[in-house]
Amino acid sequence: MQLFYNPGLAEETKEFTFDSAESKHMIKVLRKKVGDALQMTNGKGLFLFATITDNNPKACTVEITDYKKIYPTKHRLHMVVAPTKMNDRYEWFLEKATEIGVHEITPVLCERSERKSIKMERFQKVIQSAMKQSFQAYLPIINPIITLTEFLDQPQQGLLFIAHCEDMERFELKRKLAPDRPTTILIGPEGDFTKTEIKMAEEKGYVPVSMGKTRLRTETAAIVACSTVALTNNG
Amino acid sequence: MQLFYNPGLAEETKEFTFDSAESKHMIKVLRKKVGDALQMTNGKGLFLFATITDNNPKACTVEITDYKKIYPTKHRLHMVVAPTKMNDRYEWFLEKATEIGVHEITPVLCERSERKSIKMERFQKVIQSAMKQSFQAYLPIINPIITLTEFLDQPQQGLLFIAHCEDMERFELKRKLAPDRPTTILIGPEGDFTKTEIKMAEEKGYVPVSMGKTRLRTETAAIVACSTVALTNNG
Repeated sequence: MQLFYNPGLAEETKEFTFDSAESKHMIKVLRKKVGDALQMTNGKGLFLFATITDNNPKACTVEITDYKKIYPTKHRLHMVVAPTKMNDRYEWFLEKATEIGVHEITPVLCERSERKSIKMERFQKVIQSAMKQSFQAYLPIINPIITLTEFLDQPQQGLLFIAHCEDMERFELKRKLAPDRPTTILIGPEGDFTKTEIKMAEEKGYVPVSMGKTRLRTETAAIVACSTVALTNNG
Repeated sequence: MQLFYNPGLAEETKEFTFDSAESKHMIKVLRKKVGDALQMTNGKGLFLFATITDNNPKACTVEITDYKKIYPTKHRLHMVVAPTKMNDRYEWFLEKATEIGVHEITPVLCERSERKSIKMERFQKVIQSAMKQSFQAYLPIINPIITLTEFLDQPQQGLLFIAHCEDMERFELKRKLAPDRPTTILIGPEGDFTKTEIKMAEEKGYVPVSMGKTRLRTETAAIVACSTVALTNNG
């Protein structure tokens, strides 16, 4: 079973016509026929069950037969991660974080960031595709890139962490997590946060944490953090 | 600080000359000079501390000044993972598993495996490079590809798990893990293990497990498994 995404879908939607690109993909590539069942989501907690009523490869139309509302998780994970030098590593993080579970992502520019810009449209596609692939009803939010200083000036609720590798006092992330809480985790660039950045975050209430005994790349640390939060919150 | 790898290094090694490719890389790319310090490992638990004594770009030579033995972890993780359709997804698993912590990897051919062969040399390079990057003294072992049936016929010690998504009784992996134990985890291909394969594994003592609430890709499930084992064993 495949999942399709359109942010415009609602509980009231009774019929839906895909745009020409998606219609072509559905009929010519996936070879869907009239009567075939499929599932759709609006990325905001709604699953719609549909049947193809018109297999027009330019305007494939479905009838909605049922819907299901998925409640949001009690916890909420916000990953604040510096862009990696190589774009594909950040895209891996986005894909894996979406599969494992993340609610909001903010790329942050740090003192040691070598990459200063991101490809927002591409990132959004990666997240959408991972949501569909892992059959989820919520699309993670990705925010525009901002500087760490700007980010730290925004008040955040819940548990706040900064993961780093500096030789300063740190706690194990898993020991400081708690279920059902909003959680924000900062992950630095290749070369890590500077000591000044770490102190600045600590002053804003971010608890310094480590993620195990090995030295992890930016995107690996971010995925291990998502996995640790998921383990803390799943049952 | 960078880590270099050579399986021939030993506690007795007093001097070492890099081959021409590594010498060129070290002198021409990394621009190392006489007197520069570096660290090396044999991938078998030994770290050697060295100083460059000859910056010959065809035969860079170092003097070993000290060494440190790293004890193996008490637990031992063997990941038995079906090759993914796309090679890069498996390589990504190898890189991340090495960073997070894995001791042995066996690619297994399952009924639904679409890819039947792997690039062993390339895989070994990925693992070596991840070991160096994450500054570890042990190189994970990667075994040749075998069929699931062949693998299940080999006796394994410790905790045995098969992760799958079928609608059959499963336990949460994290609840069945225990620290300091040898652990073997089977992860199936895209399309999952067949029910017959799952039953065959269960008959050999493998406990069926799930890894959280979302549907994970092969390589994501494998990484989440490594991360869960690392969390169970780190402290």
